[in-house]
Amino acid sequence: MGSEVHPSGVIDNDKTVFSSPKITAVEGNNGEQENHELHPQIPGWFAEHCPIWPGEAHFLKVENVCFQGKSEYQDMLVFQTSTYGKVFVLDGALQLTEKDECSYQEMMTHLPLCSIPNPKKVLLIGGGDGGILREISRHSSVEHIDICEIDTMLIDVYKKYFPDVAVGYKDPRVKINVIDGTIFLKSVPRGTYDAIIVDAFDPIRPDHELFETQFFESVSKALRPGGVLCIQAESFWFKSLDIQQLLIKSSQTFKGSNDYAWTIVPTYPSGVIGFLLCSTEGPHVDFRNPINPIDPENYGISKKPLKFYNSEIHSSAFRLPSFAKKTEAKSTTKGV
Amino acid sequence: MGSEVHPSGVIDNDKTVFSSPKITAVEGNNGEQENHELHPQIPGWFAEHCPIWPGEAHFLKVENVCFQGKSEYQDMLVFQTSTYGKVFVLDGALQLTEKDECSYQEMMTHLPLCSIPNPKKVLLIGGGDGGILREISRHSSVEHIDICEIDTMLIDVYKKYFPDVAVGYKDPRVKINVIDGTIFLKSVPRGTYDAIIVDAFDPIRPDHELFETQFFESVSKALRPGGVLCIQAESFWFKSLDIQQLLIKSSQTFKGSNDYAWTIVPTYPSGVIGFLLCSTEGPHVDFRNPINPIDPENYGISKKPLKFYNSEIHSSAFRLPSFAKKTEAKSTTKGV
Repeated sequence: MGSEVHPSGVIDNDKTVFSSPKITAVEGNNGEQENHELHPQIPGWFAEHCPIWPGEAHFLKVENVCFQGKSEYQDMLVFQTSTYGKVFVLDGALQLTEKDECSYQEMMTHLPLCSIPNPKKVLLIGGGDGGILREISRHSSVEHIDICEIDTMLIDVYKKYFPDVAVGYKDPRVKINVIDGTIFLKSVPRGTYDAIIVDAFDPIRPDHELFETQFFESVSKALRPGGVLCIQAESFWFKSLDIQQLLIKSSQTFKGSNDYAWTIVPTYPSGVIGFLLCSTEGPHVDFRNPINPIDPENYGISKKPLKFYNSEIHSSAFRLPSFAKKTEAKSTTKGV
Repeated sequence: MGSEVHPSGVIDNDKTVFSSPKITAVEGNNGEQENHELHPQIPGWFAEHCPIWPGEAHFLKVENVCFQGKSEYQDMLVFQTSTYGKVFVLDGALQLTEKDECSYQEMMTHLPLCSIPNPKKVLLIGGGDGGILREISRHSSVEHIDICEIDTMLIDVYKKYFPDVAVGYKDPRVKINVIDGTIFLKSVPRGTYDAIIVDAFDPIRPDHELFETQFFESVSKALRPGGVLCIQAESFWFKSLDIQQLLIKSSQTFKGSNDYAWTIVPTYPSGVIGFLLCSTEGPHVDFRNPINPIDPENYGISKKPLKFYNSEIHSSAFRLPSFAKKTEAKSTTKGV
């Protein structure tokens, strides 16, 4: 690993542990008092501030620190909480808690995989915690799973501190590619994958920088006709998300179906996270109807049943509150 | 009103404004340092701590205080935030924000009222903000609405600072009863109401103290055969909620249908709140199917369309994540 493992214990120096990289607050200095007011800190507590939702902060008490370190790429922190279990923080941003990760991982995986018949080859970009691998492993049709995760220290930390999440790595169908996903995609033959799941970027919205790159084109090329993409998208509670605009943008690349779904994650800003689902031109995909249901007897490598996902929740995920429907394009799902 | 209206401005004495009545933290005193660690406070920010979810706190920055006062019954605070609009706090507990109140008010009203044909007489116990009245007013079949709200100062504060919520009071069908709802119920003739909505207690769960009283029996008696109750219930993210047990308990009083639904409210603990829906013996009620849809042209007294509720969201509200389904009784909705 890149850094020493800290012994367990409460770290009360909140300057390096608990402050997001954007925070430079130092107490007692008037010039920086403004930063402290914008991004408050409390010794012994972790605070996540969401930049697009100013004036709000979600604090979790650190019962003890399990790990704190720095790889070649990013800062990592693992700590224990009272009611969320262990929490993983990357560069000051909360990634995962043991309590509610089931919602995100299960929906991110099964919304796309249950929408297509017999997925065989799946690519996961990011998702280094292993939870999505755990979920993919419930699908017996899958023959090969590529994961692109550039930070091997991150994988090691998850394996050590979140074994029920990282259990996905034990599936023999998994091949770890220690490479940036964008670079990996360049070498993938056209039409290789049935599904590509992307858990590597900030939630997508219409003005996301990814739309300025060739990323989505690379993904589209790597998918077979009628193959599917799932990538996390902004919560509809944020004004920055215009679902209609988002689907118009994605449909410029993905000539099959484009749709938006959501799930609940208490520890994420607004308690909701979205998903952008796209398919390439080819066999029709209707994301709203899970034609490839999970075999309830197939627990995959975790040997445990689903905690969150089921077929009812799958179709509910596409139903929007009225204020969000106003910005929803008629889903670009084409009829058969 | 019982107290003076404070001028706008940031209050940075956090001892009386921002501390929940349970917090006695005083800085600089070792003996009380423990309390501060359990319930952190930051000057200029409001913090809500949920007792059944320790080690977590949701902070909102106070842009300015609009009102702070005390009636005969409770402490009230109204302040402005960056992204939630104005916020109302009662005895240290967040009641409502302008941004997300639509979810709670609309679902609490239309889940029951859209499940029965032509509701005419409705009773609201609590809900003194007026938002549920605003929602009831969209139903043209309704002829009379009784509200029981004992704190007239609360009504005045809502009318002054939350006019888009308290607009419900302008509906001429509304009659305000300044009386405790429990006492009011005692004088209600049997079978008076088509629907009773209760927005006055902490969220219901199987061990809630209300089950030790005659409250539910009084409600049942006041409802006509096949009349409906809606009362807020615990979020399924909390271990204290066993949906199966909850429905078994309520069905001891309500001999028609008993069901559980939920909605998303970012500012509530866990981002989710539940609803217990019950009907009395008589004409069948299937809460999951809105047989009495809202006329989309009827905006009621607010003259504004619904922001959250729609028929799709109505039926989705009964769909549960798998971990919550495990505790769900087969809904006691009896077949026709």
